Amino acid sequence: MSIAQDARQAANAECLRRMCAADPVLTDVRHAIEAMPGMAPDLVLTSGPTLPWREYVGGQRDAIIGGALFEGLARDRSEAEARLEAGTIRIGGCHPCGAVGSLAGIYTASMPVFVVRDATTGVVGHCNFYEGTHRRRLNYGVYDSGVHERLDYVHKVVAPVVGEAVRRAGGIGLKRIMSRALHMGDELHSRNTAASLLFARELFPHLIELAAQDRASVLAAVTALTEDNYFFLRLSMAAAKATADAAHGIEGSSIVTAMAFNCRSFAIRVGGLGDRWFTGPHASVQAKLFDGHTEDEITWMGGESIITETIGLGGFAQAAAFPLQAYQGGAPEAMVERNLEMYRITQGENDSYKIPFLRYRGTPTGIDVFKVLDTGIAPVMDIGVAGRDGGQIGAGIVRAPMACFAAAADAWRARYGA
Amino acid sequence: MSIAQDARQAANAECLRRMCAADPVLTDVRHAIEAMPGMAPDLVLTSGPTLPWREYVGGQRDAIIGGALFEGLARDRSEAEARLEAGTIRIGGCHPCGAVGSLAGIYTASMPVFVVRDATTGVVGHCNFYEGTHRRRLNYGVYDSGVHERLDYVHKVVAPVVGEAVRRAGGIGLKRIMSRALHMGDELHSRNTAASLLFARELFPHLIELAAQDRASVLAAVTALTEDNYFFLRLSMAAAKATADAAHGIEGSSIVTAMAFNCRSFAIRVGGLGDRWFTGPHASVQAKLFDGHTEDEITWMGGESIITETIGLGGFAQAAAFPLQAYQGGAPEAMVERNLEMYRITQGENDSYKIPFLRYRGTPTGIDVFKVLDTGIAPVMDIGVAGRDGGQIGAGIVRAPMACFAAAADAWRARYGA
Repeated sequence: MSIAQDARQAANAECLRRMCAADPVLTDVRHAIEAMPGMAPDLVLTSGPTLPWREYVGGQRDAIIGGALFEGLARDRSEAEARLEAGTIRIGGCHPCGAVGSLAGIYTASMPVFVVRDATTGVVGHCNFYEGTHRRRLNYGVYDSGVHERLDYVHKVVAPVVGEAVRRAGGIGLKRIMSRALHMGDELHSRNTAASLLFARELFPHLIELAAQDRASVLAAVTALTEDNYFFLRLSMAAAKATADAAHGIEGSSIVTAMAFNCRSFAIRVGGLGDRWFTGPHASVQAKLFDGHTEDEITWMGGESIITETIGLGGFAQAAAFPLQAYQGGAPEAMVERNLEMYRITQGENDSYKIPFLRYRGTPTGIDVFKVLDTGIAPVMDIGVAGRDGGQIGAGIVRAPMACFAAAADAWRARYGA
Repeated sequence: MSIAQDARQAANAECLRRMCAADPVLTDVRHAIEAMPGMAPDLVLTSGPTLPWREYVGGQRDAIIGGALFEGLARDRSEAEARLEAGTIRIGGCHPCGAVGSLAGIYTASMPVFVVRDATTGVVGHCNFYEGTHRRRLNYGVYDSGVHERLDYVHKVVAPVVGEAVRRAGGIGLKRIMSRALHMGDELHSRNTAASLLFARELFPHLIELAAQDRASVLAAVTALTEDNYFFLRLSMAAAKATADAAHGIEGSSIVTAMAFNCRSFAIRVGGLGDRWFTGPHASVQAKLFDGHTEDEITWMGGESIITETIGLGGFAQAAAFPLQAYQGGAPEAMVERNLEMYRITQGENDSYKIPFLRYRGTPTGIDVFKVLDTGIAPVMDIGVAGRDGGQIGAGIVRAPMACFAAAADAWRARYGA
């Protein structure tokens, strides 16, 4: 091995070590403007590498406009568009503000966010709240009075109760919840059923105390925590963001520390290559669509929840979550095979996150750009599928495009030598 | 096929239909003396076919004495033994009183029991409460002041709160909880982690109401419901008992409607052959023992929790519960293979209880005595393992002995013709 390769191995080993040592703890729920670095009142954050306003199309464009309207930055759609064009409403990426976006990934200043701190390094990740089961959601490119009402309910009823319970608890450790959930059929991206229950259980004693003051709100929060099996996804995402950021910025590392997409392209960020995004085209998705929908409706409107795959969960832990078949299609044997493939493109295994079916093997963790290129195996991701006309129309599996790994490898060589 | 065989097929089909149609609902928590038919103040119930007092040995004998002391039927061990010998303390079986016993399966009059009613037929099953995580338990043949204290706590603090919450809820449907738990890593015998959480979640809104009166007891109940991952086992057992009894007593049926053992033998009951037990020897267990214990310590002190296997759960749903490896040993491939074998000895599949790894195939349900004999495949069961000196020393897998199936087949032929 060359000197560069030796150094890369050491850097990648350190990156894996940090990913595995990360100990994400939910410490608070605060408004984005208070919690997130760089957040501003005139800013609308959205998923993926930031584009000039005119390049946003379809659902992601609609979601940005929806975010501006939700935050009261414009009175109507045309004013919002004019202000976005003029730059008096600014667009930013979630990642630079320490957050990750679900699908279109809209953040505005007043939204409550989970604050998740890696107790090992102090690095913090954020994520806003799940909008609920309704298929029409801001993050799926829809904004109307129903969407507004549901967001308002989550922000004004659910989030304050959850936040108060979390503070009373002195924070909630997420690592143990995530570890247990992997033994209960979750992979913590497209399935968060057990984790949501385990999280609710941690809050129960504190919710009981809070109920003495305001029973109705507590009951509403309990419902939100558990009626829907995706409440925990945003916590898994924030935990993964804190974990990935804790492992980012190691000189010489060729490990992927973020994957994200916008309406135009897929992108990765690499540990030893700064905050630059390396892009490639969208890949095709193997989807299971809800009744009444067809493949030609599938559209891309952004997504950063694949931060979970970046740290070895989601598609990298599919063999922990056979029930996913019912949601995103596929067969158990294929899930196992795909999961095993991921060991060939990763730096190592996370002993805190184990897969029972694989004899409690740790999840494959730390995607190495060079291993992806050498094997030709692209990272697999479990994703929700958006429809052309807005809203969720299904779920499925997607592969990252090779082009972004090739671009990252070129950049690595250019910086560190062959 | 002969006429007898045609009739048997029809009877067995009806038996399976009733097992699948059963809809167990937890309706109440009451004292055994109030709820269970045939229960009496001088009665100590225990697992398996009832033996004369002098034939009870080891842990099961100790557990019966412990039950008598716990209930205050004797002042000390020697008085208890004298009264059991004299018959002024009587011994009975759990099954004839509409209940199932965990391990030694001790029931006394004052113990609170879950009342589970099959909403389809009205048949009721009962089970008492889990004693908690401590390895020294009455049902593992141990009785001392610590055991007494823990039982007292469960009976006087936990059970009243749970009972009140259940009544406020107007009953808790167990079928949906059990169905979901199978998608979350439980097989509802040796693993009840998800079911316990799902059950706690159902009670939670009612517990919040109750907390307005007595917060401390409610907090204690929440802890009991969820700190331990076996709380739901007793509900699974009561549900299985109601289900099996709903399918019992069909003229001509060769389907097993109960399996049980005592310290002397293993036994089965058959749907078309009344309440008679057909016995065979204990089989050897493939166990994973807790640290510091050895195989020569393994002892039999009774057990009726295998009512879960009788209705297609537990060992018959192992491929739903790969995390069980950590508790009872074994490998995922062997779990799948054993689970698949069970389809060869059962009447059909239960579409309400499905196994994700087997592509959501229904659990193998309704053990046919003749299929067991024809294939030579013995039913597999997930069990807790008791130690010679009392207490739990591990967990494992056991097979039912062929002799009881041969005896049952002989009895079936004697009654219905070849």
